[in-house]
Amino acid sequence: MSDLARFSINQMTVRQLSLPELTGACVELGVPGVGLWREPVREYGVEAAAELVRDAGLRVTTLCRGGFLTATDPDARKAALADNRRAVDEAAALGTDTLVLVSGGLPAGSRDLRGARERIADALAELGPYAGEMGVKLAIEPLHPMYAADRCVVSTLAQALDLAERFPAHQVGVTVDTYHVWWDDTAPAQIARAGAAGRIHTFQLADWTTPLPAGVLNGRGRIGDGAIDMREWKGYVDAAGYTGAIEVELFNEELWAMDGREVLAQTAARFLAHVIE
Amino acid sequence: MSDLARFSINQMTVRQLSLPELTGACVELGVPGVGLWREPVREYGVEAAAELVRDAGLRVTTLCRGGFLTATDPDARKAALADNRRAVDEAAALGTDTLVLVSGGLPAGSRDLRGARERIADALAELGPYAGEMGVKLAIEPLHPMYAADRCVVSTLAQALDLAERFPAHQVGVTVDTYHVWWDDTAPAQIARAGAAGRIHTFQLADWTTPLPAGVLNGRGRIGDGAIDMREWKGYVDAAGYTGAIEVELFNEELWAMDGREVLAQTAARFLAHVIE
Repeated sequence: MSDLARFSINQMTVRQLSLPELTGACVELGVPGVGLWREPVREYGVEAAAELVRDAGLRVTTLCRGGFLTATDPDARKAALADNRRAVDEAAALGTDTLVLVSGGLPAGSRDLRGARERIADALAELGPYAGEMGVKLAIEPLHPMYAADRCVVSTLAQALDLAERFPAHQVGVTVDTYHVWWDDTAPAQIARAGAAGRIHTFQLADWTTPLPAGVLNGRGRIGDGAIDMREWKGYVDAAGYTGAIEVELFNEELWAMDGREVLAQTAARFLAHVIE
Repeated sequence: MSDLARFSINQMTVRQLSLPELTGACVELGVPGVGLWREPVREYGVEAAAELVRDAGLRVTTLCRGGFLTATDPDARKAALADNRRAVDEAAALGTDTLVLVSGGLPAGSRDLRGARERIADALAELGPYAGEMGVKLAIEPLHPMYAADRCVVSTLAQALDLAERFPAHQVGVTVDTYHVWWDDTAPAQIARAGAAGRIHTFQLADWTTPLPAGVLNGRGRIGDGAIDMREWKGYVDAAGYTGAIEVELFNEELWAMDGREVLAQTAARFLAHVIE
């Protein structure tokens, strides 16, 4: 088994590559898995993308992303549920069993975090069974608390699991992403809780570097550049029984300005140096 | 009792005002309390500043700030402890019973959050008794998790209380600042825990607005502009038995570019509109 056996490159890390460029580079560099994003996949065509990755012998480790389930407006809510059903369909078509969910922020003018979290639960009650039928697991991703207002009212693994545990594990679990949980001293125990119930549906890596850029979206650090001990976090998911893929997902303007194939090669090398070896 | 009876303006909110301008504006506008910062106080002279606020009949609700106790280098550590003793002395000289502590981030190159938190406890074992003798309470301030790497490894009220509870309440307690804890669904229970032990040493307000600016330091929103329900959080500290001052502390480039007296008047008006009435 290659040391890259569990490595997966999240498409966002090398978004400058077209899908054929990405799959080609993966084959060439011995990268076995990819985490795909809906927008570029739909642009290329879902069926065509599925064929492309299948022909390349790649495993699609996740589809990113569904979610945004916090709207109060009935029409917006209905549209969000329909869009999430489509995301489940796309995941199934791509041959991945995991759809990452980013829950959504507060509706404009709202200050009701609790209500927003409850609307996510209501939405999961509809989406979970549908996903289960399609063989797709929903992976609620707690995002760093700095996104609580505008992107994701689910800020901790404990909150994500409180939501997920209302449903069977094959319907709803969690995403563990080091970037979002590294500061949280309760996260290791929550990873154990998630693992014991078979609810770690994906494990993603990005490093924490400062200063954060304006808007705090695109400053995720390359593995090894920041404050996060990657081996420590891999140790937690290992101990919790997680044996799946490990995705590196970086939103980083500097990396996007580089040659994408070079970024992929470097990311794989850093994965080996800081996570595996 | 005036509706502003519990209002205190943190000096940083109107840092464009000199100390005499600040105290003058407070008297004129009926603002009874000020939270002072060490740097401008030392520049003006600690004794002179103490006389100024005393003559103006103002209450100094806190001194900001001590802390930065995470260094591993022995000389840096010794210097930090000495500086914190001076901060205690300054607080006593100014007539305030509360010194806010910002714990400090990870030393350069370190990834050991746990070790850094333990060094804070070690430092408090020296500083707590000294502060107690001087009649000054140390108020550990958990900072938002987005500061965990570079400013403050204490990210939640639970962590702050775990540290504080190793010492008597009159030596060490916590700062509850809405900006830092608003996203945390465990914070209300931790406020109750803190209040029951007499460990809420100050309560500060700032609102959460997005997008965050680069560096994420100076984007704190004016009360009422953001995602935080101020009455809800005042309700939690009220229920926990806190009857002390409520400081508004905004780090905000736009406000700093305005007329300071106008900012003070506006901040007092927003305090009444969004917290008291």
